[in-house]
Amino acid sequence: MRRFVILGHKANTDGSFKLNDMAGGAGRLDILLRCINSAFFLSHGIRRDVEVYLILLGPPNPPVTIKLSGSEIRYLNPDERSTGSLIRNALLKMKDRDEISSSPGIYASRMGLEEVILSMKDTQIIYLHENGIEMEEMDFQAGKDLTFVLGDHMDLSEEEERILEKYGALKASLGPEILHADHCIVVSHNILDKKAKLK
Amino acid sequence: MRRFVILGHKANTDGSFKLNDMAGGAGRLDILLRCINSAFFLSHGIRRDVEVYLILLGPPNPPVTIKLSGSEIRYLNPDERSTGSLIRNALLKMKDRDEISSSPGIYASRMGLEEVILSMKDTQIIYLHENGIEMEEMDFQAGKDLTFVLGDHMDLSEEEERILEKYGALKASLGPEILHADHCIVVSHNILDKKAKLK
Repeated sequence: MRRFVILGHKANTDGSFKLNDMAGGAGRLDILLRCINSAFFLSHGIRRDVEVYLILLGPPNPPVTIKLSGSEIRYLNPDERSTGSLIRNALLKMKDRDEISSSPGIYASRMGLEEVILSMKDTQIIYLHENGIEMEEMDFQAGKDLTFVLGDHMDLSEEEERILEKYGALKASLGPEILHADHCIVVSHNILDKKAKLK
Repeated sequence: MRRFVILGHKANTDGSFKLNDMAGGAGRLDILLRCINSAFFLSHGIRRDVEVYLILLGPPNPPVTIKLSGSEIRYLNPDERSTGSLIRNALLKMKDRDEISSSPGIYASRMGLEEVILSMKDTQIIYLHENGIEMEEMDFQAGKDLTFVLGDHMDLSEEEERILEKYGALKASLGPEILHADHCIVVSHNILDKKAKLK
């Protein structure tokens, strides 16, 4: 299982935005939508062994975590607008509740970063960061889940970095250029796909 | 210089589509927009040494080629909707003309695949294809431009493949999984960035 946890530092938390304004009024939700695309899509299907956690930290009610489960998800298309509609729908259905499932494979809750990490069992946490070890050179334990954590357009805060450190996160880098979050996910998959083939 | 030539087999050629319907009525323009994002964006800027050619082959007036030049382009944002607006604007401004520049770094013309290839000088053409040689293993001549050719959601036609063969294209593969076109561009950049760093 590969998991991607993306922190949306300004991302809207009640669904009160227009689908025409996801890069603006929704607090750069567009970045998170592209991360969903990168995490799940193969040319002829969906990566079923993937989970994505979007941790939304913008107004008015942070945090909200949207979990997308590849083994269950339906109605997922690659374009930003249709995925934005799924996420907005989850936020609108949540209202004042603490936890809901809005459509197959999509869950919303009030977890923040530390609770998300605590909800996972027996996983190696990888913090994608330009000063990390080259991921290609890293040896991952067979059979252990990998959980990648990355920020949106803003770096992780010191507090967020402390949480990752507390849970033994390894810093991994993906190459000489610093990439957008969704591109980091594509490259991570590709490196892991190649490693898996070698085994 | 890295160039990416993407064939949009059904993509609209007169701008008569809605920005809310780019995955539908615009003939899967959404795929081509994500390719633009993948080709140009780094975390803190734009790859200036990149050119993208979108060859639009859908109704009503194919072919139309939109060229985007990284060294000149302005007003480019990462989200699909704003880039879709730039492309639609180019198509609408073109009308019955053969060649226009619609905004800085964006050019529209009536070229098809073979004319696009003939317009490039001294370039190695790479056809991204699952049955190619692993790109990581390929040696590229220093100082020569690389031009990557790939399809949208549809494979290249036999006629398109014949054109690539005629101009000496090498087939390159990116790993064990078959990826969406925009993800192929992200992985290609990453492999080339790493190769460039080693030199």
